[in-house]
Amino acid sequence: MNTVLLPQDSVGVVSEQRAQFDVPLHLSSGGVLPRFELAYETYGTLNAARSNAVLVPHALNASHHVAGVYAHTPQNVGWWDNMVGPGKPLDTRRFFVIGVNNLGGCHGSTGPISMHPSSGQPWGGDFPVVTVEDWVAAQARLADFLGIDCFAAVMGGSLGAMQALQWTLSFPQRVRHALVIAATPQLSAQNIAFNEVARQAIVTDPDFHGGHYYAHGVVPRRGLRLARMIGHITYLSDDAMMEKFGRVLRRGTPGYDFDIDFEVESYLRHQGDKFAGVFDANTYLRITKALDYFDPAAAHGGDLTAALAPSRANFFVASFTSDWRFAPSRSREIVRALLDNRRAVSYLEIDAPHGHDAFLMDDPRYLGAVRAYFENIAL
Amino acid sequence: MNTVLLPQDSVGVVSEQRAQFDVPLHLSSGGVLPRFELAYETYGTLNAARSNAVLVPHALNASHHVAGVYAHTPQNVGWWDNMVGPGKPLDTRRFFVIGVNNLGGCHGSTGPISMHPSSGQPWGGDFPVVTVEDWVAAQARLADFLGIDCFAAVMGGSLGAMQALQWTLSFPQRVRHALVIAATPQLSAQNIAFNEVARQAIVTDPDFHGGHYYAHGVVPRRGLRLARMIGHITYLSDDAMMEKFGRVLRRGTPGYDFDIDFEVESYLRHQGDKFAGVFDANTYLRITKALDYFDPAAAHGGDLTAALAPSRANFFVASFTSDWRFAPSRSREIVRALLDNRRAVSYLEIDAPHGHDAFLMDDPRYLGAVRAYFENIAL
Repeated sequence: MNTVLLPQDSVGVVSEQRAQFDVPLHLSSGGVLPRFELAYETYGTLNAARSNAVLVPHALNASHHVAGVYAHTPQNVGWWDNMVGPGKPLDTRRFFVIGVNNLGGCHGSTGPISMHPSSGQPWGGDFPVVTVEDWVAAQARLADFLGIDCFAAVMGGSLGAMQALQWTLSFPQRVRHALVIAATPQLSAQNIAFNEVARQAIVTDPDFHGGHYYAHGVVPRRGLRLARMIGHITYLSDDAMMEKFGRVLRRGTPGYDFDIDFEVESYLRHQGDKFAGVFDANTYLRITKALDYFDPAAAHGGDLTAALAPSRANFFVASFTSDWRFAPSRSREIVRALLDNRRAVSYLEIDAPHGHDAFLMDDPRYLGAVRAYFENIAL
Repeated sequence: MNTVLLPQDSVGVVSEQRAQFDVPLHLSSGGVLPRFELAYETYGTLNAARSNAVLVPHALNASHHVAGVYAHTPQNVGWWDNMVGPGKPLDTRRFFVIGVNNLGGCHGSTGPISMHPSSGQPWGGDFPVVTVEDWVAAQARLADFLGIDCFAAVMGGSLGAMQALQWTLSFPQRVRHALVIAATPQLSAQNIAFNEVARQAIVTDPDFHGGHYYAHGVVPRRGLRLARMIGHITYLSDDAMMEKFGRVLRRGTPGYDFDIDFEVESYLRHQGDKFAGVFDANTYLRITKALDYFDPAAAHGGDLTAALAPSRANFFVASFTSDWRFAPSRSREIVRALLDNRRAVSYLEIDAPHGHDAFLMDDPRYLGAVRAYFENIAL
């Protein structure tokens, strides 16, 4: 057995937990999930007053594995490990942190690869399209299960930020602070367009079989690979890509063929291959739909101020200058609507070169601001 | 027979012409094309001094059909018909205008769908990867054939602009003016990344067969469709897409399925389907490679000023504020390098909302500036 040496500020070796829910969940689509399971992890200790819980929903392709490592795969570090740990900005010596895999996911929560309760076959293409609202409703069941009436905070980046925002609308009494990072109040037509190309890559893959590919013993790997490559471009800024890859030719000179010429091609193919080997295409389809549909203002004739009126939380909103996927102007829409509702809002626009992925990076001003915000949360 | 009523300022009914070249063309790749054919069109009349010829190379997915209509398909109007015609900015009463299909194209010039001279089968995947320099070398043969020693101007947008710029480097004595519109001196890593995803969509399509799909009686339609959808997003600005499509739902409410929800999805699918029905995938692959490889500064250690030193032309350079594919900053790099070389440069940065495709649009300031520039060209 290997001894894993972990830094002092790591939450250390963690384990996945599961919670089962047998009361039917009514979905935005009108469908019903008769029962479901959520995979989650926790770090730190819930205090006696149960007032120090922080929920960290995940973005497009992450999971409940937010921090720490697994005993059997010590190289698999949680996706926000630089944010969550003892002495880190979200300090697990003070807070009890929960990561949860979204409903419809492919990392342990009930989703398309789960068995359909009546057929005994995987749900596959029959798994319902779920929304950010549905995710938040499912997470509320987990909060009940853990005995948490009110979160000290819900914090997320990108799609995770949409869930943090939705928490303040679906359950205004159950969240004291929302940290909404690299967010948008709704996808733009261009955002939807990129998602749609990714979906079309998957559904037109001959191995897709209407989502029932498990039964055929195949996966739409080509489509999922392309979907990931497209997505990846939108996570990085033009400048960051130029800084990272430039126009460097792997073979020194042009190949005049369709093998890898430029470093950026190699990187994208590698990212696509890696992702296609571990992620489920049906889950990817559904997550992009949840992104597309998220639009709290829609039910209020496009009036975001009216849409955010139910929220009672205090807010930390952060955006990144080079994020062209969800640009700072979109975060400012949220800030304005919250201020119109006289909510307390800390807004930070960080001059960072990395693009949308900046919310995952080690920017000291950004991490420092999150740290300061959490330090000021009374328990 | 239908009578086609055309506007007074149309060049009217036009016909494609072909020119054959039997002297081998040595390519950038080191390969040789033993013979080739170019499809072209002309509008206006070459004057006695042969001093009024203007070459208009095309961008990614266009052709030699720049202006006017064909007798048998009067709805098929040339791609730059708003620019070229009697009384239009490039006035065919004064200039003799030539449109030419690029080598490797799929609209009549020798390319992957042409017969290989020895095998009697289509070239397919064996057609060489050609470059902007190769295109310009082939176009010079056409100029020889037409008896044109020196062009009054070479004008292009996007990839066409790269050819206009390359003309001033490959044949500095043969071009008096270059109109370089919506250009870049080299693709960025992000630009290459988008091209690479498009190529991967094509080459991983099971119907691609290494480029020899003609022999299998199929075309990689799925891949070409995705390639076009990806490309199309990069031609439009986020704002233009939002203006055109917003978040309008075709069925009024979310479908909670993978049929068309948002208008932008319908538009992209339609554009992809249409393109996949008329364009050749092998050509698309090669055009994206020509884009990726174009980089005159590369042979000069990245020094664009040194690279552009051979040019003797006067320049008109125009960019569009909302073009995020080839942003104005990239055009300004060209302008600076030309000014360093003491070339005469008119530079216009147009505040236009349409994105990269703005170079094809009816913006009066833009069209007016091109008109004024041509009016000042002495014959």
